[in-house]
Amino acid sequence: MDRYIAQRLDLADTLAPFRSQFNVEESGPIYLDGNSLGRPSTAVTERLADAVRDWSENLVGGWARWIDLPAAVGDRIGRLIGASSGQVVVCDSTTVNLYKLAASALAARADRQVILADAHDFPTDRYVLQGLAESAGRELRLLEGSVVDGLDTDVVAGAIDAQTALVCLSHVNFRSGARLDIAAITEAAHRHGALVLWDLCHSAGALPVALDDDGVDLAVGCTYKYLNGGPGSPAFAYVRRGLQAELRQPIWGWFGQHDQFSMASIYQPDGGMSRFLTGTPPVLGLLGVDAAAEILESAGIRALWAKSERCTEMLVDLVRARLEPLGATLASPSDPERRGAHVSVAHAQAWPWCNALIERRMVVGDFRPPDVIRLGPAPLYSRFVDIFDAVERMAEVLKAGVDDVRDRPKSPE
Amino acid sequence: MDRYIAQRLDLADTLAPFRSQFNVEESGPIYLDGNSLGRPSTAVTERLADAVRDWSENLVGGWARWIDLPAAVGDRIGRLIGASSGQVVVCDSTTVNLYKLAASALAARADRQVILADAHDFPTDRYVLQGLAESAGRELRLLEGSVVDGLDTDVVAGAIDAQTALVCLSHVNFRSGARLDIAAITEAAHRHGALVLWDLCHSAGALPVALDDDGVDLAVGCTYKYLNGGPGSPAFAYVRRGLQAELRQPIWGWFGQHDQFSMASIYQPDGGMSRFLTGTPPVLGLLGVDAAAEILESAGIRALWAKSERCTEMLVDLVRARLEPLGATLASPSDPERRGAHVSVAHAQAWPWCNALIERRMVVGDFRPPDVIRLGPAPLYSRFVDIFDAVERMAEVLKAGVDDVRDRPKSPE
Repeated sequence: MDRYIAQRLDLADTLAPFRSQFNVEESGPIYLDGNSLGRPSTAVTERLADAVRDWSENLVGGWARWIDLPAAVGDRIGRLIGASSGQVVVCDSTTVNLYKLAASALAARADRQVILADAHDFPTDRYVLQGLAESAGRELRLLEGSVVDGLDTDVVAGAIDAQTALVCLSHVNFRSGARLDIAAITEAAHRHGALVLWDLCHSAGALPVALDDDGVDLAVGCTYKYLNGGPGSPAFAYVRRGLQAELRQPIWGWFGQHDQFSMASIYQPDGGMSRFLTGTPPVLGLLGVDAAAEILESAGIRALWAKSERCTEMLVDLVRARLEPLGATLASPSDPERRGAHVSVAHAQAWPWCNALIERRMVVGDFRPPDVIRLGPAPLYSRFVDIFDAVERMAEVLKAGVDDVRDRPKSPE
Repeated sequence: MDRYIAQRLDLADTLAPFRSQFNVEESGPIYLDGNSLGRPSTAVTERLADAVRDWSENLVGGWARWIDLPAAVGDRIGRLIGASSGQVVVCDSTTVNLYKLAASALAARADRQVILADAHDFPTDRYVLQGLAESAGRELRLLEGSVVDGLDTDVVAGAIDAQTALVCLSHVNFRSGARLDIAAITEAAHRHGALVLWDLCHSAGALPVALDDDGVDLAVGCTYKYLNGGPGSPAFAYVRRGLQAELRQPIWGWFGQHDQFSMASIYQPDGGMSRFLTGTPPVLGLLGVDAAAEILESAGIRALWAKSERCTEMLVDLVRARLEPLGATLASPSDPERRGAHVSVAHAQAWPWCNALIERRMVVGDFRPPDVIRLGPAPLYSRFVDIFDAVERMAEVLKAGVDDVRDRPKSPE
């Protein structure tokens, strides 16, 4: 592997033209943190400016265009995750959506005692389930898998039984990038009558997901990583059509109400996906997500994933060749079939190393405790040569040695 | 009352210069719906453009500036509602915040059976409480007051007893604009050991509110009405300092976690107001609210309210003089001490009348079922002459007669 090969890959890359839509500062650091916060495209910047103009000029009249955004943008996200129309809404945060859907599932399996989750899942997932287990008097059973390779399908399947109410897992682990098998785990859960809730934060917009085909019950995810919707842009929620009428979520807001604008005295949830909405939707956030997801749709999720696979494979090879001799280790699955779209590198000095790379404007990745730097190429705007150069710079900094730094980063997912 | 007097009032209005910050199209309809969706100021437009630029240029590095926005913008809102620092956060929607705070209150009064609320309150408030009453096994008791004048303090106080867990009311009624007495009702609740939760959607940024001085326990409100934060901008939540450590909200998200970025395995809520946060905050929405609220602060809430009182008084006089002879009736309290910042007019043909005024680009108010048009002057950008002209146009349309229209409006609060 040398730089020339990376350049050749870029020349042959059919997605390369998309980079011009993202205002990448060529003299800036190499950005490999699109798995935390994606870049704004020109279309997003323009759509947000248009939205503010619409608000200014049309004021409350804008609602004629805005009122259906949660469903319309949801359908667009749905096309990226294998969900046909009417099953996805964009609203609230991932945390709040996870709460609503997990609570709904527990209510629908009131006679079952156990929630299964991953001991190494992202904090908000574990915390929300802890809270629900406590309030609903259930047991949260956390499965221990490999920190690098994630949970084995057999381990998850073997833990599911007739007492399992809900299996709640992340498709791709936030730290290691380990990918679980949605189809197999969902099927195992259904064999025992349990419901499944998949967190797609680290896969929506990056990997092909087939929610309908895989028979998934529930899913949530954010829109600010690979979907490039903007910092804190609203999240999505998926509920399988056949389950919608049966599930009732706990936050009875007026956007979930049947015939909302009649303002009836008794809450009666909408018959379809709108019952999972709560309050007034965040219009600017929704419009940003819509413009951002449109580009992913036009690129095609299979093409994006094909490039992503080549990027992560290259990263893994380079980490092994250039960083492992310097004391770092690959902290992502070595089997490409078990990987998501980012690659993690462990090192005892991971935080000072990561911090030095950012401070010197060389490479932007992100640190996750205790000892990992995550590197997430984004197929729409990352080049193969960026990956090559990034690892060279990481090696350079590590060779020179890094000092310890006191402050810990505060970088959200 | 004639147009000349209105013009004289505008000339003497010390807040008049603020109008130039709001891009008002002088040939457009008269906008009296700032009580539903406020206008963007130039500062908000610029702040949002800056935020997108910051995101584009600094990417994930922007979080150094964004991470504390829920608390910082919360403190700014706090200064408008009489709350000292560290008691207000901006996050989620009003619906979700109402859910979190009401659920927290019920958990803290687990031995008490009754939630008291207003039968004529805004739908989301009633629905959220219905849901919580059902899930927490409590009784939601809805107090019936005058549709025009709102609940009497004595009626509310008389309904509170040792079985009351929570009194949850809107400071200003969304339909009639009737204003309740926060201090007196809060005191009555506390006499019996109940908690109070005030919805300030229709008063924050319009009326002086004194949460700390009045000993209020909990409050929520939106930021897109008088606060001009933008369509669906994030809401706020207030929890009295002395209560914060005692209350636990049900949505255990990672932004509520103590020492969030250590990503500990067990959820342990932050010791202060951050425990009421949930997921990743909506950065663009927060920055819009911050810029918008800054202008209100510089104008001063007392000056805003003084002008608002004169505006609503003028509106009431004109409704009586010009519209009541045409079959409309005042649907807001006649006593100024019981009014908020908007005035409502009832008419059997309220919706076609409202619709004709909007369609003909004459006046933008909004319709609320069954038969009310709401008119909300905004002291920052409404003129006295606008109020005079608006009522003249309303009379003109009513005199000519309005046809019925089938479609009902879909205009959120």
